[in-house]
Amino acid sequence: MSIVLNDLYDYDGMKIYQNNENFKFSLDSILLAEFVDLKKDTNLIVDFCTGNAPVPLIISTKCDSDVIGFEIQKKIYDLAIDSVKENKLDNRIKIINDNFNNVKDYIEAESVDAVTCNPPYFKYNENSIINEDDNLAIARHEITMNLEDIMNNARYVLKNKSSLYIVHRPDRLEEIVNYLSKYNFAIKKLQFIYSNMRKEAIMVLIKATKNGNQGSLKVMPPINITDCKTYKGIFEKGD
Amino acid sequence: MSIVLNDLYDYDGMKIYQNNENFKFSLDSILLAEFVDLKKDTNLIVDFCTGNAPVPLIISTKCDSDVIGFEIQKKIYDLAIDSVKENKLDNRIKIINDNFNNVKDYIEAESVDAVTCNPPYFKYNENSIINEDDNLAIARHEITMNLEDIMNNARYVLKNKSSLYIVHRPDRLEEIVNYLSKYNFAIKKLQFIYSNMRKEAIMVLIKATKNGNQGSLKVMPPINITDCKTYKGIFEKGD
Repeated sequence: MSIVLNDLYDYDGMKIYQNNENFKFSLDSILLAEFVDLKKDTNLIVDFCTGNAPVPLIISTKCDSDVIGFEIQKKIYDLAIDSVKENKLDNRIKIINDNFNNVKDYIEAESVDAVTCNPPYFKYNENSIINEDDNLAIARHEITMNLEDIMNNARYVLKNKSSLYIVHRPDRLEEIVNYLSKYNFAIKKLQFIYSNMRKEAIMVLIKATKNGNQGSLKVMPPINITDCKTYKGIFEKGD
Repeated sequence: MSIVLNDLYDYDGMKIYQNNENFKFSLDSILLAEFVDLKKDTNLIVDFCTGNAPVPLIISTKCDSDVIGFEIQKKIYDLAIDSVKENKLDNRIKIINDNFNNVKDYIEAESVDAVTCNPPYFKYNENSIINEDDNLAIARHEITMNLEDIMNNARYVLKNKSSLYIVHRPDRLEEIVNYLSKYNFAIKKLQFIYSNMRKEAIMVLIKATKNGNQGSLKVMPPINITDCKTYKGIFEKGD
């Protein structure tokens, strides 16, 4: 049996369904969920590319907001649905089995307090030898969406001055900044993740505010994941 | 007497003239000079906003390239000229007392292997109460140039695929990325400087290549200046 019920990291009592063969959540999602600035009046958060729902599940432990996750792949959507039910969070977390590019069909414009996204990291080249039915390929490569889609759709659903949170690879940072500017997001926080403080950053966390003012960007303290001993188990399991 | 001859940090035997009242070089210039990737075929480097010439002086210890520095302020230009003479580097370092926005009057298009710039960090607001004759105000505020001028003029003088190196404040990073993209520079390296690894970055070093390809940006290991004990003296003296 490849589907297993795991503890969701060290969030008390939280469980998550994983598929050992082709889909497990990774450290990136934990870092993203922890990076989100939650306010008292946060009522609705939308998570694009939700996978088996680690971000909605973690956010639900930290605030009372409702969370809607989009997951295009049916098999992974099923893991998310089962994980939400297992944690008795059906009343607060809704998972939609569709491409987040169709978000306008489900969510009103300017109704959302925060958007999170742990997207596929790699560009899809039409010449790439990738099995389009492969869950992992779709989770890793921009086959069903591209980088610009994130900003475009986040802009549609977010309230004015609300924020988009993304985790991505540093080598895509320049593109990300350009698209954020194109859709009139101002970057408020960047945080770089290192697996070794003497080597290059392996990930970047980005907070960008819709219709925000440029010029107040902060680069937060670096995160060394090898210092986060409690993250170690996750990272070893991670994809 | 406010003009003094100091050791240039710990570069063997290198001396630099400073004005204790209104102009001393800072750690930023050392970090910028050390950040430059020098190649065997580097023949000509141009340093915008050269101040009392710390970047040309340090670069001259690391390679055989000629360096041309632009300094708009006559009193600071005089410090640079005296510093270059003191180190007997007149044959390799030329300082021009003009705004780098006039670079086309002095340097041929596409003739330069690298451009460095430690610019004024702060935007100039016409309502600001700043004495325009104040050397320090001009060194700190965008009175005689603006951010976009750096990319525009660097693009003119740089050879194809050669690089611009900038040190700046992280809160201007988004603007810098946008202007680099506008002038078709691709960012190749970012490096963040911290005075305390638990606090926000205080500076950023940027390497961007003219007509380079996007998507290979590397975020280098963080630099903690408190670890650099030998930098301490400089930083305490810094502006």
